[in-house]
Amino acid sequence: MTALARLELTASGATSAITAGPDALVAQTASLADWVGGGTLFIVSAQPIRALHDARLDPLRRAIASNGGRCVELDVPDGEPAKDDVGEASRLWNAMLAAGGRRDSRLLTFGGGTVGDLGGFVAGCFLRGIAYAQVPTTLLAQVDAAIGGKTGVDLAGGKNTVGLFHQPVQVVADTHVLTTLDRDLLRAGLVEAIKMAYLLDLDLLARIERDLDLLLAGDVAALAPVVQGAAKAKVDVVLQDEREGNLRRVLNFGHTLGHAIEADLGYADLSHGDAVAWGLRFALRLSRRRALPRADADRLFDLIDRLGVPNLPPSVRAPTAVDRLLDLMQNDKKATLRGLVWVLAKMAGTHEMADDVAPDAVRAELAAFLAEPTARA
Amino acid sequence: MTALARLELTASGATSAITAGPDALVAQTASLADWVGGGTLFIVSAQPIRALHDARLDPLRRAIASNGGRCVELDVPDGEPAKDDVGEASRLWNAMLAAGGRRDSRLLTFGGGTVGDLGGFVAGCFLRGIAYAQVPTTLLAQVDAAIGGKTGVDLAGGKNTVGLFHQPVQVVADTHVLTTLDRDLLRAGLVEAIKMAYLLDLDLLARIERDLDLLLAGDVAALAPVVQGAAKAKVDVVLQDEREGNLRRVLNFGHTLGHAIEADLGYADLSHGDAVAWGLRFALRLSRRRALPRADADRLFDLIDRLGVPNLPPSVRAPTAVDRLLDLMQNDKKATLRGLVWVLAKMAGTHEMADDVAPDAVRAELAAFLAEPTARA
Repeated sequence: MTALARLELTASGATSAITAGPDALVAQTASLADWVGGGTLFIVSAQPIRALHDARLDPLRRAIASNGGRCVELDVPDGEPAKDDVGEASRLWNAMLAAGGRRDSRLLTFGGGTVGDLGGFVAGCFLRGIAYAQVPTTLLAQVDAAIGGKTGVDLAGGKNTVGLFHQPVQVVADTHVLTTLDRDLLRAGLVEAIKMAYLLDLDLLARIERDLDLLLAGDVAALAPVVQGAAKAKVDVVLQDEREGNLRRVLNFGHTLGHAIEADLGYADLSHGDAVAWGLRFALRLSRRRALPRADADRLFDLIDRLGVPNLPPSVRAPTAVDRLLDLMQNDKKATLRGLVWVLAKMAGTHEMADDVAPDAVRAELAAFLAEPTARA
Repeated sequence: MTALARLELTASGATSAITAGPDALVAQTASLADWVGGGTLFIVSAQPIRALHDARLDPLRRAIASNGGRCVELDVPDGEPAKDDVGEASRLWNAMLAAGGRRDSRLLTFGGGTVGDLGGFVAGCFLRGIAYAQVPTTLLAQVDAAIGGKTGVDLAGGKNTVGLFHQPVQVVADTHVLTTLDRDLLRAGLVEAIKMAYLLDLDLLARIERDLDLLLAGDVAALAPVVQGAAKAKVDVVLQDEREGNLRRVLNFGHTLGHAIEADLGYADLSHGDAVAWGLRFALRLSRRRALPRADADRLFDLIDRLGVPNLPPSVRAPTAVDRLLDLMQNDKKATLRGLVWVLAKMAGTHEMADDVAPDAVRAELAAFLAEPTARA
């Protein structure tokens, strides 16, 4: 069995201790209980994850109770609706205050990216910030969303448009919880792991290429080292650039068009991961116009082909979609006055930030891509 | 005429440049316009302050326009209702996004403490944080609220229970805007200045004692050095302790009971400043039970006597009020598991943090105080 990986991420003076692998939650129970002490732990989760895995928190609950502390359980709706505007956050803040929450209270998120993003935001603003821990339960959250301190909720005008950077004290990625994920959720996480592996860690990429069928089948022994490798790649990036001044943008590989596709579809019909998979194909095409060798591009095209990503819905492939997608990309919150910066591959394992891709070239490539999305450049 | 005071406050890696005195806004127009560059400045204000002073921002608007930038004007309701829960913040975030706000957009608050607290919170969470400046227009905001990076809104369960630390890039305290304040608003600011002067700066205390009648009459020549002195005292405290680990609690002098009185009255009938004035008298009584010499206590009692603070309403003086106020103090968000820490005076100019005041002693002193609030100990 894979040993636990232990990583540290220090940013803005705060340190996140990240533990990833089989039984990570068992291993961290004592330190989480110590951290809560005799105080209050707010556990933020959602019914579907409670139904599957809630008992995994029982040892922690017992340890806290035996320290004289207490747990207050808070549920949020399942999935992205929990992040609609700030209503759910407000409901949680009021509940925490009514339950006697104080500045030395703690919060723990137990769920996927939505629970983590919302719970982290709630912790970051409650009484001007209380400490929290992330216990991510999806592959996407374990390899990406739970690490790095980004928290937030959505406005009608855009995803994650309200939030803050608030580093969790601990991230506990217990790979045993991944056994209950379906293939769609596994693929969603793998896309983000592949995104990082392709630009940042070719050993991890080779492992994913080798084990892809096991990974898509939810084999925990295969997943654990991928979670650990992707977590390490993400930590290394955030360590160097917490606030997305520059390097952290590398994590946006495939996301510029991916976000636009999601927005154009009204966040329906295609998951975030699948939209990013299409965005990665487009980024490869733009990269091929520059330095990326064909063999290096093919390596990622091949891997994405094997993922079984659903087709792009017809509405985003209509000729009129080009203008809509270009507009959406221009309005991405990562855009600045100076325009879009594309994260592209120079070769497998090497990225470039390109702020000099001519708008006409983007338009032409996008039209060609939408006409034949599975074509390679 | 008083020269401008320029102070710098660095906390959490961010630096606030504070400019205080007559025509501070004129002096800072060029640097504020540079900061906005060719981008967007969201100006958050309220109708009453716009009616009195909006034209003072016109030179800044012109400078921004001539740089190719633009201003987007956003109004919030006047006074504390703007801070009720997160509805107003949500409205502003949606408006900012609809107006094309980006990560390199800026925000400027132009108003009293409410506008600053709400605007700072909105800036701190918009797209995970944009830079902002505070242009406080009340004495309370100039001497205290605008400095130090505390932002937030209220929940039904408590004031400033949702928010974050977000240091403004600039605080511009132009004392000319103080000419339109009425005596109640001047007194509210003076109470906070006196609180700091008594524990932190005896020269400032002597100045306030000497000039009190001019200060209460809104004499700008008298007010300017008091704003500067109090701002400097606050900066010195926050420099040493941004997050209220310890020293920043000194600013809570008079606030433990003051907050409880406000809450018990449902934030009606007595202003924050007046409640704090009564809280200061109570803190002096507790201090007298310990080390504070009578002459030192009398100095602050005398000054508060001269302020003309309205009487404590009968409802908070009823015998049943003692328990309610004790409960409210226990639930203050600054309380921790270890209980209340009182900020007391050892002598004028010297404070102590007392975590060993016996609950029975507090109860007895509170009962005596409520029976005869103007009595000295």
